[in-house]
Amino acid sequence: MVKWVYTFGAGKAEGSSDMRDLLGGKGAGLAEMANLGLPVPPGFTITTEVCTYFYENERRFPPQLAADVETALGFIGRLTGKAFGDNEAPLLLSVRSGARASMPGMMDTVLNLGLNDVTVRALAQNSGDERFAYDSYRRFIQMYSSVVLGIGHHHFEDAVEYHKEARGVTFDTELGAEDWEKLIVAFKAKVVEASGKPFPQAPKEQLWGAIAAVFGSWLTPRAITYRRIHGIPANWGTAVNVQAMVFGNMGPTSATGVAFTRNPSTGAKELYGEFLLNAQGEDVVAGIRTPNAITEASRCAAGSDQPSMETALPAVFAEFVRATELLERHYRDMQDVEFTVENGKLWMLQTRTGKRTSVAALRVAVDMTHEGLIARDEAIARVDPASLDQLLHPAIDPVATRKVIATGLPASPGAASGEIAFTADEAEQMKNMGRKVILVRIETSPDDIHGMHAAEGVLTTRGGMTSHAAVVARGMGKPCVTGAAAIRVDYANATMSAAGVTFKRGDMLTLDGATGEVIQGAIEMSQPELSGEFAILMKWADEVRRMQVRANAETPPDARAARKFGADGIGLCRTEHMFFETDRLTAVRQMILADDLAGRRAALAKLLPMQRGDFIELFEIMGGLPVTIRLLDPPLHEFLPQTAAEIDEVAEALGVPAEKICSRLADLREVNPMLGFRGSRLAIAFPEIAEMQARAIFEAAVEVKRRTGELVRPEIMTPLIIAKPEFDLIKAKVDAIARTVAEETGQAVPYTVGTMVETPRASLRAGEIAESAAFLSFGTNDLTQTCMALSRDDASSFLGRYVALGILPADPFVTIDQDGVGELVAIGVERSRAARPGIKLGICGEHGGDPATIAFCEKLGLDYVSCSPFRVPIARLAAAQATLRRKASNTD
Amino acid sequence: MVKWVYTFGAGKAEGSSDMRDLLGGKGAGLAEMANLGLPVPPGFTITTEVCTYFYENERRFPPQLAADVETALGFIGRLTGKAFGDNEAPLLLSVRSGARASMPGMMDTVLNLGLNDVTVRALAQNSGDERFAYDSYRRFIQMYSSVVLGIGHHHFEDAVEYHKEARGVTFDTELGAEDWEKLIVAFKAKVVEASGKPFPQAPKEQLWGAIAAVFGSWLTPRAITYRRIHGIPANWGTAVNVQAMVFGNMGPTSATGVAFTRNPSTGAKELYGEFLLNAQGEDVVAGIRTPNAITEASRCAAGSDQPSMETALPAVFAEFVRATELLERHYRDMQDVEFTVENGKLWMLQTRTGKRTSVAALRVAVDMTHEGLIARDEAIARVDPASLDQLLHPAIDPVATRKVIATGLPASPGAASGEIAFTADEAEQMKNMGRKVILVRIETSPDDIHGMHAAEGVLTTRGGMTSHAAVVARGMGKPCVTGAAAIRVDYANATMSAAGVTFKRGDMLTLDGATGEVIQGAIEMSQPELSGEFAILMKWADEVRRMQVRANAETPPDARAARKFGADGIGLCRTEHMFFETDRLTAVRQMILADDLAGRRAALAKLLPMQRGDFIELFEIMGGLPVTIRLLDPPLHEFLPQTAAEIDEVAEALGVPAEKICSRLADLREVNPMLGFRGSRLAIAFPEIAEMQARAIFEAAVEVKRRTGELVRPEIMTPLIIAKPEFDLIKAKVDAIARTVAEETGQAVPYTVGTMVETPRASLRAGEIAESAAFLSFGTNDLTQTCMALSRDDASSFLGRYVALGILPADPFVTIDQDGVGELVAIGVERSRAARPGIKLGICGEHGGDPATIAFCEKLGLDYVSCSPFRVPIARLAAAQATLRRKASNTD
Repeated sequence: MVKWVYTFGAGKAEGSSDMRDLLGGKGAGLAEMANLGLPVPPGFTITTEVCTYFYENERRFPPQLAADVETALGFIGRLTGKAFGDNEAPLLLSVRSGARASMPGMMDTVLNLGLNDVTVRALAQNSGDERFAYDSYRRFIQMYSSVVLGIGHHHFEDAVEYHKEARGVTFDTELGAEDWEKLIVAFKAKVVEASGKPFPQAPKEQLWGAIAAVFGSWLTPRAITYRRIHGIPANWGTAVNVQAMVFGNMGPTSATGVAFTRNPSTGAKELYGEFLLNAQGEDVVAGIRTPNAITEASRCAAGSDQPSMETALPAVFAEFVRATELLERHYRDMQDVEFTVENGKLWMLQTRTGKRTSVAALRVAVDMTHEGLIARDEAIARVDPASLDQLLHPAIDPVATRKVIATGLPASPGAASGEIAFTADEAEQMKNMGRKVILVRIETSPDDIHGMHAAEGVLTTRGGMTSHAAVVARGMGKPCVTGAAAIRVDYANATMSAAGVTFKRGDMLTLDGATGEVIQGAIEMSQPELSGEFAILMKWADEVRRMQVRANAETPPDARAARKFGADGIGLCRTEHMFFETDRLTAVRQMILADDLAGRRAALAKLLPMQRGDFIELFEIMGGLPVTIRLLDPPLHEFLPQTAAEIDEVAEALGVPAEKICSRLADLREVNPMLGFRGSRLAIAFPEIAEMQARAIFEAAVEVKRRTGELVRPEIMTPLIIAKPEFDLIKAKVDAIARTVAEETGQAVPYTVGTMVETPRASLRAGEIAESAAFLSFGTNDLTQTCMALSRDDASSFLGRYVALGILPADPFVTIDQDGVGELVAIGVERSRAARPGIKLGICGEHGGDPATIAFCEKLGLDYVSCSPFRVPIARLAAAQATLRRKASNTD
Repeated sequence: MVKWVYTFGAGKAEGSSDMRDLLGGKGAGLAEMANLGLPVPPGFTITTEVCTYFYENERRFPPQLAADVETALGFIGRLTGKAFGDNEAPLLLSVRSGARASMPGMMDTVLNLGLNDVTVRALAQNSGDERFAYDSYRRFIQMYSSVVLGIGHHHFEDAVEYHKEARGVTFDTELGAEDWEKLIVAFKAKVVEASGKPFPQAPKEQLWGAIAAVFGSWLTPRAITYRRIHGIPANWGTAVNVQAMVFGNMGPTSATGVAFTRNPSTGAKELYGEFLLNAQGEDVVAGIRTPNAITEASRCAAGSDQPSMETALPAVFAEFVRATELLERHYRDMQDVEFTVENGKLWMLQTRTGKRTSVAALRVAVDMTHEGLIARDEAIARVDPASLDQLLHPAIDPVATRKVIATGLPASPGAASGEIAFTADEAEQMKNMGRKVILVRIETSPDDIHGMHAAEGVLTTRGGMTSHAAVVARGMGKPCVTGAAAIRVDYANATMSAAGVTFKRGDMLTLDGATGEVIQGAIEMSQPELSGEFAILMKWADEVRRMQVRANAETPPDARAARKFGADGIGLCRTEHMFFETDRLTAVRQMILADDLAGRRAALAKLLPMQRGDFIELFEIMGGLPVTIRLLDPPLHEFLPQTAAEIDEVAEALGVPAEKICSRLADLREVNPMLGFRGSRLAIAFPEIAEMQARAIFEAAVEVKRRTGELVRPEIMTPLIIAKPEFDLIKAKVDAIARTVAEETGQAVPYTVGTMVETPRASLRAGEIAESAAFLSFGTNDLTQTCMALSRDDASSFLGRYVALGILPADPFVTIDQDGVGELVAIGVERSRAARPGIKLGICGEHGGDPATIAFCEKLGLDYVSCSPFRVPIARLAAAQATLRRKASNTD
């Protein structure tokens, strides 16, 4: 027979903490505390299986349930010496929901259940406090009506206000027992008026109403939405916890409070919490009275003159400290507990793992490992990798006042203040004059890179989380807000307006890249400090993780950041980013504008020494770590000037007619550049470009070997491949250059040639391609764009709606779409491995720094992930966690 | 022991026609003719396996081969009474290559092999004709030197010219035996000069030199290129045929010729060929003398006064007729034969299946079926579906002179002449004035549809085989040339220039959509006539084919064309095409410019009756055949005006400020519209559009049922789906409208809702999607774009190179890329069938009319293909052939 009800109390329980799925989080915690001998008001949990039954049987309960509840009520009665529905010694109950995961939108709590016009008098008599009894009753009517009967609080509050006015008083505390008695009459009338039925007087009816309301709240729209957003399965269900009431508002030796076993902000090992004398739980939450500190130490630290619990209730405090220490040791994690003191007697009402800041999470994990409470693996598992972002970037002082003028997408974390610049050149000039700049653009293009470099932060009014601005800013580790559509930028007048205010060039602006907020004026920032715990945890993570973590980096600052953040090498060096500095850009443009091969070769000859210099510097910084260099990828038009003024300027600089630039631009113009003449298509059409790049790479490797003695093994990567012969043609060119350079220099450079897998076709043909390619790097940005027909530059107009409607579980540019893009990656992995066992496989691009994607990569057994330098620590930790999870599931 | 050599002659052969793979086409034909008792000069075939051996063993022959050849030479000697290398009765040989498929670029023929300074005298003596003997010898030296020794013909021709000049004569025929004898001395000196070695005198050396040259020519660059282009595997190899020489140039009763057993132009059952008295084969080809007709009938028809073979050599003619009749009956197909008559004796030298025009192919196939020579299935299999295009479109008179000014892509077949118009409006105005128009655009957009309708043909200077212009023109059955990049269009001055000529509006231009040629002036056209054989073959094909063939059609003319060409229904009705007529466009624009839902609804209310009218007409034309209607697909900006002038005009017409249009255009502007806010994304964002369309469909179905009594079962299709919930949301809207209309009209319309599969993700998730979708239509155009990251609008800049380099086997927009896109379709088919057995599956889009793709669809077991109305006959035939091939391979 199925067991639907689990009791607890008096030092034992039918359940335990490992029955969380069945009892919910709260129920499991109560059972465990009872088992530990902690004082828990006796009660019982109705299991989540009842919830499932309820929904599978047209909202009916299992036939056996009523009898089981009856038995459990008898159990509580025996322990409390009371009886539910008894008119002399009435047992009063609390009814609380308790899902596996804490979930807003669910019915929360009904207190004082069991009170009615008769039992309230018994309560008054037994407690010796009439006001307390009637106050409890009216609270019950109010709470029950709201959460069970759906009658809004305001109905009752209006009545209270009206009554206070009539009595000429201001505060609830000024009302006495008689006032509440009168108000109860008014409350009951309100219930009849709103629901057409009298307030239920039968305690049993009250109880089953509350139980049904808890289960019913599992399918409210708000709960459904919450579950969808947080990925909680609907069939988990919720449990219901029914407990004997204990009262924190029975007088000066009663109290209620909440506490953390460690400081949730800093992670320091100190009891941290608040309490209120003579109050019920809701009073703490309501914020009418200011709660007091629990320990003397924290009272002193806060400079409060209100007594701490340590001094006000010393015996109870001592017992409470023992209880919290026991709980933390038992759960081996920081606990967040709720308690009530009834007439000097401590009752524990809840324990759960405490939420904490990233700083605290890090410290608690490391401290607990050092204390021997947890193993290193567990410390690694406990820190949310994404939360490290907070530690690596400046943040706005949390207490500062923010004048938010618009909110866009939190495209790159961190915060920055600076003067507005509307063009990249402007930003650079202002920076050169020693000013801090925020670059504001409708959207950015590769032409703006120098301005982004100069700026403290970047704001765009278009584009999504993976727009050009977002990707580049993340790469640079600079805060960025994109798609702030409420801001209108007027380039012509060098102004922007939002929230009715117009800003001009030089006005001060602050960006919060963590929230997407755009803030008027400058705000105080807190600078990140990498604690000792950070370095310790990272070291532990590195010892555990199987996958390499590389960085996407091409400039010397990027490469240095990559090393600083512990990258195992460079997984993606986008050579085109080397082409945007002024001297290179001129030669690149000459190459694009050349009429023939000879002209292109002449321009490439100018680029060769610069490109070689780039690679020499990169190889030297990376000091022998692997560097994967991708050949030129973007469509050529990205290198040409776009506006008439720019065209004229460039025409003059290059000494070519402006019409020539216009005509070449027109030739290169494409309807869908993402699917156009780019990637390896450039190398097939203009092999001389790939040849120049290969030569620069090999010559640089030879030079670095000569200078440092360090052997460089470049990994050369072709972009956007769709077929094996395409790869083979380019590889043949690279191999030929390698031979030539070896002959010229007398030194052969060890190298490999591999390819990006960025198209569904490349994934499908990965078996063939792997016959020639030494490694594959899945470019999941482009693979997402092609697999889903989703332009990352254009998706902002509908992608939010798609996620909100649940069509897609998440932004697929942030977390890999496992069901679609992920399957393509899996296919590519499987086929390439079959063709070339041991082939090196990785992913590069934005997903490489996303913990969920990293877990997926571990599942596929990839060799490495590559991400922005600033996300390398996140990826290191996520990779370690993924390794641990895989090992755990392997041993299952 | 492997048999390397197969002999034939004197009424029998070791080989036969079914040993084509081993003996090559020519060798198999010779063996078969010998077996049939036809007079074939005795000889032997060295097999293709020797070729394979040759390349696998560093160009050495199998050890046994020399002995086998020796034996075979003995066999020829016994039959001819001569001996190879004998100085009295020398056996002379011809050596010819013979691969499985006829292949240019291979060494072709060496005649008169075995002649040297000694045997030439024996030949003179035995033939009694010194001049013939020395002429034969010098021809041999010349031919052998060219094809075996690689010494160009010009070396020898120079010597002949020099000699003729010295002798004061003009024609070769004026040279006598002595002249040739002297020239032979000069020729041999040339050989020493050019090769450093004397011309080989030993017949054996000559023979092995020729055999090695044939095998060696298998790997010449030209042969390799030809094989790559025609998909002939390199390991097929070639055979070598060695035969006793017969001479057509031995006097007035000798001759040589070629003939077809039926007329290869018309297919008429009549012997058709040419011959030359007293000539060798090469003389016919060289074109020095004009050949004569073989039959009297054809001599009379040609009005020639030269005697036909029928009168000149009546006995030989009669024997020849019997031979050709025997061959045609035996091979059950039109044969193309070569023959030589030596001193009144007929020798058959070759027989093979004759090439023919589409008209002839059709007629021969149908006639032979009626004659009982072949079965219907074979008639169906014999006509190349693609060739039907010639029969369905006007063609340029083949003898007309063409002044080609540029060549683009043959984007839509047929030919047309007309006056140049540079805008759609211009085209429409000129058409209204009764003039024929060629619309010339850099590229076309949906805005140009009315101009394309008005024009006879369309020319663009950009875009590929599946650019907008190409797709729409094919849909309309109009000739179209795209991507004619050599033409420069100047809209501002309304001129275009090419090949140094400038054309202005109204100048006459001709397009040949079959070749891509753009021709100056007007040219005579031949109009298509659909013969009775066409209808007969189509009927046979329809009886055989398993797949439905539907048409892509939305306008009444398209739908009527679809029915006329025998479509089984409409597979793709692109509703957006209904929106481009002026009255609808205005309402569509109002909808797009509306600020809110109410504004959109108001505009949609105007569209509803028009759209309903469209569907009523379509359903009536299709008379109960199925119609699949796709909801709005293209990005909205396509409906807005683009140029400043158009914007002003529209702004005035709609009574909105031009800035509003500009601002909306800016909002809708996308970097990659193909991957942007389009397809079902529109229906998710603006469900009211899909609702209006669904209502129009259901109301039209009700109305047509009322008018005609015919039950309409619309198939409603969502475009560009990426996930099941997306489809479900739209289907729910459609279902709701269906219920509403049923309630309003009292009549429920039977309907289904399915979806396009146009993204890799939709293919991968087809299992899920099929749980809700009643049918899937693979949109292989977009699937190709996404699978290969290949924008069809932009691919022209590199796709040609990709095909030429062999990176891709064919233009993937013309023939489906089976290895990539095809696998995605296969995955979609498999997964959707697993989820919903019997789900209706098809493809729509350009590939639906491509025979190779249709064969692939049959292999996957799709239920239908859908293509342009004008390609429906092609698809019907191709589908029948695919069914036959599948059945044949199933029974193998």
